[in-house]
Amino acid sequence: MVVKKNIGIFIFDEVDVLDFSGPYEVFSRTRMNPGLESRLSKKTAPFEVFTVSQSEKTIVASGGLKIIANYNFLDNPKIDILVVPGGMGTRILIENKRTIEWIQNISNLASLVTSVCTGSLLLAKAGILENKKATTHWGALSLLKKISSSTKIMTTERVVKDGVITSAGVSSGIDMAFTVVSMLCGEAVSSDTAKYIEYKRSDEIIV
Amino acid sequence: MVVKKNIGIFIFDEVDVLDFSGPYEVFSRTRMNPGLESRLSKKTAPFEVFTVSQSEKTIVASGGLKIIANYNFLDNPKIDILVVPGGMGTRILIENKRTIEWIQNISNLASLVTSVCTGSLLLAKAGILENKKATTHWGALSLLKKISSSTKIMTTERVVKDGVITSAGVSSGIDMAFTVVSMLCGEAVSSDTAKYIEYKRSDEIIV
Repeated sequence: MVVKKNIGIFIFDEVDVLDFSGPYEVFSRTRMNPGLESRLSKKTAPFEVFTVSQSEKTIVASGGLKIIANYNFLDNPKIDILVVPGGMGTRILIENKRTIEWIQNISNLASLVTSVCTGSLLLAKAGILENKKATTHWGALSLLKKISSSTKIMTTERVVKDGVITSAGVSSGIDMAFTVVSMLCGEAVSSDTAKYIEYKRSDEIIV
Repeated sequence: MVVKKNIGIFIFDEVDVLDFSGPYEVFSRTRMNPGLESRLSKKTAPFEVFTVSQSEKTIVASGGLKIIANYNFLDNPKIDILVVPGGMGTRILIENKRTIEWIQNISNLASLVTSVCTGSLLLAKAGILENKKATTHWGALSLLKKISSSTKIMTTERVVKDGVITSAGVSSGIDMAFTVVSMLCGEAVSSDTAKYIEYKRSDEIIV
């Protein structure tokens, strides 16, 4: 029997579509057994993946994609792995006390905290990146430093592991997710999942 | 002034998340002007991207992601570029007359028809891939041939252009979208968009 880990993906207005959907795809398609058949059920799925918004409502992501969050801050199940994606919406949320506190509280209880793109700005604001190596979208590297001056900003890697796992812009969230799968399920499971979604993983990852 | 093209992305229950969200991201982030600033508005966006479902309702994509379609078959605006993504839901839709007829009707009027992954099964059923080169997810290559015996099945390329543009499994839809951007907006616009979303494009494309 596979003991599933809960992966909570925070979504919000103007979250970038691929920032959250890339990791969503990777985590929800991962199976401990390889091949096509195992994907027909969730029997060997190591993760239970769901979205969480601040309030119960429809989220309008980048480009106008409408998503209904599975949960909100008041009713979300226990989150083992937190994914904080980025997007223009993060600029407003940096000043949103309720969001920052929720990220702090969830992070205190989670076994792993991750971000994609400018999601790292929210982690920085929550104090989670203090004295850690981290990255973000190339257009927000200086803003990340401004929010968390003790953070060592990594400018060339797609995925940076330093307790917290941050990733560079948008599509690098897919590589972040595969890094997590490799850590928790092993390289064979990660490779099989990449084969299933026909993704060529990047090796620009630092430990 | 940029004359926008309408890109309609068909979504349905058990559509694969990355199949539709990858092209959604690429098309909705494309700008004729490069850099960060141009992405703050839709002023130089060459595409208007929207989702279309058969009926007006919430779609539950792979892994349980809930999406609200922008339009349905009865009210969708003119579609210049049709994107048909794949996913397990395609297996039922192959036998859904209303869906196949909608794809036929839209394809007759569209300037470009594209598919991701097993979306090509629906194009095949609609007769759109007759005597054409095409591809699909590696697990569905023989099924594609079974549905459209005159189609030349390409087994190693991520993106196949033969009037209709088909792509291989899941993440290769991102490469399909960049192929379209390059065709319609030029290589510089395509490269700048790839840089913005930090995606490394594949060269496994045949003309």
